[in-house]
Amino acid sequence: MENVRPTVDCGKYPAKRVVGDTVPVRAAVYSDGHDLLRACVRFRQRGQKQYRESQMRPLGNDEWEGPLTLERIGTYEFHVEAWVDHYDTWVDGLRKKVEVDSESDVDLAIGAALLKGAAARTKEGADRDRLLTAAELFESTAAPLQERAGRALDPRLIATARRYPDRSVATRSAGFSITVDPVRAGYSTWYEMFPRSTYRADRVHGTFLDAIERLDYIAGMGFDVLYLPPIHPIGLSFRKGRDNALVADADDPGSPWAIGGPEGGHTSIHPDLGTAADFRALVKAASDRGIQVALDIAFQCSPDHPWVQEHPEWFVRRPDGSIQYAENPPKKYQDIYPINFETDAWESLWQELKNVFVHWIAEGVTIFRVDNPHTKSFPFWSWCIAEIKAKHPQAIFLSEAFTRPHRMYGLAKMGFSQSYTYFTWRTEKAELESYLTELTASDVADYYRPNFWPNTPDILHEYLQEGGRPAFMIRLVLAATLSSNYGIYGPPFELQEATPREPGGEEYLDSEKYEVRRWETSDPRSLAPFITEINAIRARHPALQRTRGLRFHTTDNEHIIAYSKMSEDGGDVLLIVVNLSYEHTHSAWVEFSPVAVGHHDSRPFRVTELLSRRSYTWEDYWNFVKLDPHHRPAQIFRLEPE
Amino acid sequence: MENVRPTVDCGKYPAKRVVGDTVPVRAAVYSDGHDLLRACVRFRQRGQKQYRESQMRPLGNDEWEGPLTLERIGTYEFHVEAWVDHYDTWVDGLRKKVEVDSESDVDLAIGAALLKGAAARTKEGADRDRLLTAAELFESTAAPLQERAGRALDPRLIATARRYPDRSVATRSAGFSITVDPVRAGYSTWYEMFPRSTYRADRVHGTFLDAIERLDYIAGMGFDVLYLPPIHPIGLSFRKGRDNALVADADDPGSPWAIGGPEGGHTSIHPDLGTAADFRALVKAASDRGIQVALDIAFQCSPDHPWVQEHPEWFVRRPDGSIQYAENPPKKYQDIYPINFETDAWESLWQELKNVFVHWIAEGVTIFRVDNPHTKSFPFWSWCIAEIKAKHPQAIFLSEAFTRPHRMYGLAKMGFSQSYTYFTWRTEKAELESYLTELTASDVADYYRPNFWPNTPDILHEYLQEGGRPAFMIRLVLAATLSSNYGIYGPPFELQEATPREPGGEEYLDSEKYEVRRWETSDPRSLAPFITEINAIRARHPALQRTRGLRFHTTDNEHIIAYSKMSEDGGDVLLIVVNLSYEHTHSAWVEFSPVAVGHHDSRPFRVTELLSRRSYTWEDYWNFVKLDPHHRPAQIFRLEPE
Repeated sequence: MENVRPTVDCGKYPAKRVVGDTVPVRAAVYSDGHDLLRACVRFRQRGQKQYRESQMRPLGNDEWEGPLTLERIGTYEFHVEAWVDHYDTWVDGLRKKVEVDSESDVDLAIGAALLKGAAARTKEGADRDRLLTAAELFESTAAPLQERAGRALDPRLIATARRYPDRSVATRSAGFSITVDPVRAGYSTWYEMFPRSTYRADRVHGTFLDAIERLDYIAGMGFDVLYLPPIHPIGLSFRKGRDNALVADADDPGSPWAIGGPEGGHTSIHPDLGTAADFRALVKAASDRGIQVALDIAFQCSPDHPWVQEHPEWFVRRPDGSIQYAENPPKKYQDIYPINFETDAWESLWQELKNVFVHWIAEGVTIFRVDNPHTKSFPFWSWCIAEIKAKHPQAIFLSEAFTRPHRMYGLAKMGFSQSYTYFTWRTEKAELESYLTELTASDVADYYRPNFWPNTPDILHEYLQEGGRPAFMIRLVLAATLSSNYGIYGPPFELQEATPREPGGEEYLDSEKYEVRRWETSDPRSLAPFITEINAIRARHPALQRTRGLRFHTTDNEHIIAYSKMSEDGGDVLLIVVNLSYEHTHSAWVEFSPVAVGHHDSRPFRVTELLSRRSYTWEDYWNFVKLDPHHRPAQIFRLEPE
Repeated sequence: MENVRPTVDCGKYPAKRVVGDTVPVRAAVYSDGHDLLRACVRFRQRGQKQYRESQMRPLGNDEWEGPLTLERIGTYEFHVEAWVDHYDTWVDGLRKKVEVDSESDVDLAIGAALLKGAAARTKEGADRDRLLTAAELFESTAAPLQERAGRALDPRLIATARRYPDRSVATRSAGFSITVDPVRAGYSTWYEMFPRSTYRADRVHGTFLDAIERLDYIAGMGFDVLYLPPIHPIGLSFRKGRDNALVADADDPGSPWAIGGPEGGHTSIHPDLGTAADFRALVKAASDRGIQVALDIAFQCSPDHPWVQEHPEWFVRRPDGSIQYAENPPKKYQDIYPINFETDAWESLWQELKNVFVHWIAEGVTIFRVDNPHTKSFPFWSWCIAEIKAKHPQAIFLSEAFTRPHRMYGLAKMGFSQSYTYFTWRTEKAELESYLTELTASDVADYYRPNFWPNTPDILHEYLQEGGRPAFMIRLVLAATLSSNYGIYGPPFELQEATPREPGGEEYLDSEKYEVRRWETSDPRSLAPFITEINAIRARHPALQRTRGLRFHTTDNEHIIAYSKMSEDGGDVLLIVVNLSYEHTHSAWVEFSPVAVGHHDSRPFRVTELLSRRSYTWEDYWNFVKLDPHHRPAQIFRLEPE
């Protein structure tokens, strides 16, 4: 047995799927000689005693496949078992001999022995009687050879015998596992918002109760995850001022990522946001609208964090006795103390950090966006996520690690359910195609779930700075249709906030990270209606609720990218065509037809463009599109059934 | 640590190399945070106690590489070890701070502690003194900060400290192994010949002494392996007659693969071939000419084989008490009894079979061509080959398995040093390119060594039947230049024997398998001179002595295939251009230049065509060739150094 799939790194890590998925488990299964084989997938949920089995069928060339339906969230364990089946082999040989009239009494004697063996593996009953009766018939010479051979090939007898195969010398593969996550791990629509900016007056610190007022707006656009930057008390020492000024004014609120103050740390709530009861009210109000709250967990401390006094051993001490602040030489970040995951006291530290998650799970939160996990200990994440999901398998962890590829993929292997990606910096056709192919067509897709963000509080890409409204629409369509998980940092996104702090940089001017902002969400120029439309299309189309099923289609214009998404059962097919130029109208011939997505050839075929609601009949494999970014930079065609 | 290479099936099987190779061991090595890492390859020969180490260098993006030179044949074991190097990290950080004048006393205090740690890992001596002196300097405030920081970046101090890294919490990968074979496993030129056909008169059974007379001819053509079909006694019962007739005439010699008679079995010699002393003389005479003898080992028995009487338990008994003959329903092969590898007496059987190899190794043979290993037990081969090579690491096993790909590749993984391939049936450009790419560019190349045969006693391909002399030349050039291991079945090959037994079949008429033939090797139409020339080119060109280093080049004619071979060090580059049509002249533009093989751009560049000995100056990336199959169906260009 070779190449069992889906597996990750020789089984070192589990593959990932969502509940309800049916996984086609595959393996190469072969042996010497010409005997026939049988194989099955044996599986169980972790903690169960019994294995269930799923028969595998041969696909040809020694490839076998058996379906494994993942009925519950949690961890499934599986392996492949295969054996040389002497009964199947004998039936196959007998069939070939009968075709040329060369069967013999010896052949039937061999078969009788096999049936008796099968009978010995049954309990008393009809099956056993049928097998023993047949065996007796084969060994007698009363009936003619031809008739006995015919009986031997009776499908009902064969089916009965095949229920009791001789698996005494079967071979088992190594064991593998699959993490089965909630549906929302594979299909989620995120809205990031600073709750302190939800009050309607300038520079007044918003509260959770104000944030509740924003929920109908968010739910109305079709988002199902509300992600809040850290909600904890913010340190005073070395607090950053507006636009990351080294010194804060008295009324500057500081960065939410400088966590911890006299009021508490990672399990506390910033007093200006409200109380624990207010937070629970927000979580409930969101839930009532189909929205799950996601919290930002950043394992670092401001100098005022209680742990600095209570647990100095959890930090790195320099030889002069001072605590090591964050550094990326020669840069210094004196408002942040990194945690020392390798301290001698690591066991108590790790428990406390894990308990941060446990605390917020008890408060009703099961989705966590983790800040810069690549600068925290990898073994810690492997352990912590496994511990949390063992008790709370519905927990979802989003990794915010913008770093080298091996590390980003490694964190996903270690347990992160979703991951930020390089999407924000992939704006041209070739790089989008290349990157998306890597994400969806390689083995990466078995453990790494991309979450595409056109903007974040840290990243205002040049494309959005320069491109105006069309750029925002283009990047939204790309994110929302290329990836089943995507998010925007709002309201700056829908309000098309596009001013950087300095030319050539990616920081927002007057960044909400360092001050309270007021957002006029009712601004008529808002993209909210467009976002609503796109999210509604996602909700109606299974093809967009998974990241696989993606295929790129040739166009004859490098500014026009075309790709299709197809649902698992092939029934839902969308063709998305996007003009990547935010400035100029472009047209192109796009190569697309039912054949291109594995359907059978039917030309002409009908498509409906979902944004304009117009239908077209396409005659051939090449079809013409023309997209004006200022009017409609993208089209989404649904392939109509024949 | 991920993706350690070269490994096969997660380390389940060893990779293969030849002695003298330097393997670039690679791995992805990464950790969290920003600290610098160091990594090394630790290796030893199986049976040694101590590991040696080879430093790995970072290639970028967390890929690391370290050379492992394979000095002896046998098995090497290796793993990767890596650690976070706090000293390297500190030096790197200090360097950056010094560049902007932001170093501090605390930085040097940290460095002093690191150097003291390194000193504790030294023995008394100059290194320790240097480290401790430097540490003392860093901690004193006598000298100015800038000066002390400068000392800390002294390359000689750094080199000294780096000799004593702190590896106390290093991580080790799993262990892997490499089978290091003799050079001839990777580069060999085979000549298959029936010794019974080496007498100069018709139908007189040749002997080993007659075969010795043939050796100068074979060595003269440049072959270094002489492969003999089974040399054992041949059974009389059910003996096949000429052209596989079901009944033999009294003077038919039978098939050498129907092994065993009253005279003995697999460790005996057919009495008509000679004595054991004659055989040893042949082996020695071959060795004197640089040729190794290879024997055909076919683990099956004629009904007259001694084992049938002495060990009936080694065969399958049918219910009527008769021994099961070979079958592939509905076909029956009554002259062959297959061995039952799964008999209860398998232990004694397997030992006896292994001892067949041991016997012939004692007679001076270390190369074995194994007949149809896929119809024998896979676990037997894994065990047997490992046992033999543990004592005789120079042994080479060639797998003759024409079956499904997984089984062919699986046998290579299980230990076969070389393998027959699908080459004989790949005659068109696209299929040659596709197959050779699979063999050389995928991970298959780490464990499967192709041996290309344009013809065998079982396979006279239609291409040779139809194509006359040009076809033989074409197939020879392809085999001899695409694969570093190739062989021909002679003299039928060089004498261009091309008549099939029946139209549409691949059997030779009057096949040497069933009768003694006489070959007129001095026939002036023989291809022997051409074969000599091709083998001489192989001997002079390292590029042809490995199967890797192959690249296909575009031509604008589907009848003309072009490919380059490059030696490991890049110094020897050959471009081979072949007209695949044995009938018509074809011409084409061929895309080739030094840049195409990774050299730097130098146009014009000179090439020498080795068969015509003519030199050319090529101006550009596209160059014109014209090949008349009746005159010169192929060209071999050597890229001249600048």
